[in-house]
Amino acid sequence: MRRCSLLFAALLISGVSIAAENKPDAIRYTSVANRLIDAALADNAGLDRLEYLCYRIGNRLSGSDSLDRAIAWGADEMKNAGLANVRTIPVKVPHWVRGRESAEMLEPLQKPLFMLGLGGSIATPPGGISADIVSVSTFDELEKLGRVAVEGKIVLFDAPFVSYGQTVLYRSNGASRAARLGAVAALVRSITPRSLRDPHTGAMNYTDTDPKIPTAAVSVEDALWIHGLTRAGQRVRVRLTMEAHTEPDVDSADVMGEIVGSQKPEETVVIGGHIDSWDVGQGAHDDGAGIMAALQAVALIRKLGLQPRRTIRVVFWTNEENGGRGGLAYRDWSAKQPGKHIAAIEMDGGAEKPTGFDLGIGQPTPRGTAGEHQIIPPRFMQRAIAIGTLLRRIDASKVTPGNGEADIAPLMAGGVPGIGLRTAGTHYFDYHHTEADTFDKIIPEDFKRCTAAIAVMSYVLADWP
Amino acid sequence: MRRCSLLFAALLISGVSIAAENKPDAIRYTSVANRLIDAALADNAGLDRLEYLCYRIGNRLSGSDSLDRAIAWGADEMKNAGLANVRTIPVKVPHWVRGRESAEMLEPLQKPLFMLGLGGSIATPPGGISADIVSVSTFDELEKLGRVAVEGKIVLFDAPFVSYGQTVLYRSNGASRAARLGAVAALVRSITPRSLRDPHTGAMNYTDTDPKIPTAAVSVEDALWIHGLTRAGQRVRVRLTMEAHTEPDVDSADVMGEIVGSQKPEETVVIGGHIDSWDVGQGAHDDGAGIMAALQAVALIRKLGLQPRRTIRVVFWTNEENGGRGGLAYRDWSAKQPGKHIAAIEMDGGAEKPTGFDLGIGQPTPRGTAGEHQIIPPRFMQRAIAIGTLLRRIDASKVTPGNGEADIAPLMAGGVPGIGLRTAGTHYFDYHHTEADTFDKIIPEDFKRCTAAIAVMSYVLADWP
Repeated sequence: MRRCSLLFAALLISGVSIAAENKPDAIRYTSVANRLIDAALADNAGLDRLEYLCYRIGNRLSGSDSLDRAIAWGADEMKNAGLANVRTIPVKVPHWVRGRESAEMLEPLQKPLFMLGLGGSIATPPGGISADIVSVSTFDELEKLGRVAVEGKIVLFDAPFVSYGQTVLYRSNGASRAARLGAVAALVRSITPRSLRDPHTGAMNYTDTDPKIPTAAVSVEDALWIHGLTRAGQRVRVRLTMEAHTEPDVDSADVMGEIVGSQKPEETVVIGGHIDSWDVGQGAHDDGAGIMAALQAVALIRKLGLQPRRTIRVVFWTNEENGGRGGLAYRDWSAKQPGKHIAAIEMDGGAEKPTGFDLGIGQPTPRGTAGEHQIIPPRFMQRAIAIGTLLRRIDASKVTPGNGEADIAPLMAGGVPGIGLRTAGTHYFDYHHTEADTFDKIIPEDFKRCTAAIAVMSYVLADWP
Repeated sequence: MRRCSLLFAALLISGVSIAAENKPDAIRYTSVANRLIDAALADNAGLDRLEYLCYRIGNRLSGSDSLDRAIAWGADEMKNAGLANVRTIPVKVPHWVRGRESAEMLEPLQKPLFMLGLGGSIATPPGGISADIVSVSTFDELEKLGRVAVEGKIVLFDAPFVSYGQTVLYRSNGASRAARLGAVAALVRSITPRSLRDPHTGAMNYTDTDPKIPTAAVSVEDALWIHGLTRAGQRVRVRLTMEAHTEPDVDSADVMGEIVGSQKPEETVVIGGHIDSWDVGQGAHDDGAGIMAALQAVALIRKLGLQPRRTIRVVFWTNEENGGRGGLAYRDWSAKQPGKHIAAIEMDGGAEKPTGFDLGIGQPTPRGTAGEHQIIPPRFMQRAIAIGTLLRRIDASKVTPGNGEADIAPLMAGGVPGIGLRTAGTHYFDYHHTEADTFDKIIPEDFKRCTAAIAVMSYVLADWP
């Protein structure tokens, strides 16, 4: 974080002359930016598409029929929006299947626990795993307890929400860390600041060296309850039953379409989000809103009769949630095409009120732990800051160094500046990866502002002289 | 509401001389009120008891083993707190059993719906009821549609939350209103201002004249989804499967204990809440907090060595949620005892930050629709207002006309002034009657202030010269 701020301060100082150089160009786009913002704020077609995706297709995990339906529908909608070169980019994706699952407290009370298995987890034996609980708040606590306390037990990681990037490590790595000490299963407190007993799923990763054990998220309430009991010296016994398993990879695809540039069509600004979701809720904020805002941004650019100098390409990446294969496939496909990317923009933080963008390049760090990215070319950073000023009207002008997003990470690693839309982030993690990520959570005005922000940033970057 | 405000205004004017008469007496209690407040804010025993009730006994619907356990434990805790005349008052209570239940959308998508059967509902046939949905937002809309549109359908009442008192009418009366027009089942949007796909249960009532049909609450999200689809002309087909049924009445009991008055022991201030809950969550705010705050208020009065002139009696009423038999049984039992009640105080609105009390007498109206109660004796109202000033320190001094609470309603109907604790009410209905009404939702400082408010109000009323 410190390195990040220093870098930013340095940019601000050294960038004065560069900013001065960029500013007149940005000012030239004031009128077109205002037209785009007006059009986005008045538009309802993007919301209508998002409603259809949520209410008529629903959630869409890699390997599901509904993801296949979403991909076919997404390509049709790109055509309906008048995009050129609409096509899919085939890719094999992992096929994790949840199956039936449950958890219950057996002692001191017999009660259901509210759980969701973690993506990638293996199954329990058919009758489930019944064992005593060892509760910890941190990995350090677990290590201090050691094998003697952990062996044969189910470990509960009751880590309070600090930030997604920090706290998600318990979800990602908890199972292997517990298995290393002999645990038979791992439960993780859902990664969220707020809860109404709703569990949050998400991906987990087994190490190559530790035994694989089944793992699930439990609701915050259940984690606090169990930990409250064990802290008071009460024995807590739980049964976890999961059918989760991974089947062979299946066919999936990215979807793409373009507005072809008028002067440098081989130079591309790619924008998008991911079309897959977890197998709960409707994938509304994560990331139906991202793909629909990106599509609508380009639809509005077309509707206003604008054609930028360079190509704007919309991509709906597949398999962001449990594999990232769509982002890799797009990188590989685009490497074989003529031309190059001048920027990659992704919206994957929900459709709350946008505040601006963050920019990164090189190997991004895990979300939420900013600071380790390479230095963004100052000229590019200043250009983005200048374009950001065009979004002052909707309060979305903050442009800072950051980490971009997951699907554009492969491009960023290859030297393409990556740009992530940032939002107020007030409730995103309340809904994230739960049954509650539904269309009703989308605030129309906020979604429209996101569309406006992406439209302005992508158009002006693509049209920059 | 208007009548209520006029009454209050009249009281404020006519009450000036009465207030002048009461104020010196209230001021005499400043020191003891401060001692009670200090004690309540420093105390943790009430919270510890509430944690035990939530984490070790859990929810406690009438007819459940856990309610029996709670009653036995409650009597023990009253003895442990040093109360006199601890006893139970036996009463038969309804025994509604939820059984297995589910709802799913069959068309246009096959998806689970998040539901809880309503207390009192009958079962569906074993294979469930599959039918098309008719969605309405109001009873008026339903009437306008008429029998031709409703017959053979499942009616969804998608009524937005206005206030609990207003919106709960759809839960209470929806099934019979729909059945009157030939509906085969009724779904009701959960009565809550906020949702994370969590359904809210609660009592419903069949009329004597309409056919009985099964009825359940669905989550706000599901109601919005279904209604969004039907509004767009989409046929929505749902299957509702419920085993709910009512078994013969079973034995239950109120629990009570006392601090016997030093001068007029036959005059009683009764305080309490209800010990039963719905069969979900832990009944933490509703109403574990109420009974534990009342018990702790009296425990602290005793601990400070105070003995009021009149008796303070703590009662844990049973069966508030689906019958109200505990309140009736207490009224009948107390009518046979010597002496009389001078006031009845109940806390049953959650343990959020208290703001004060409301007072009613006579036949109370449904909660939230104030204004139809009889005139509270001005002298009593002014006394309560004067005592309220002793709670300014914790911002809980607001004393207004109102409706008291459900368990003290039978006493109020018989002429006893009823006093309900009022709170900020920011999140109470988010948790109300759901799996999320758990101990972690109790904010310790707020619970302690509730305890302080009840301790001061009950002690000073009981000790008033």
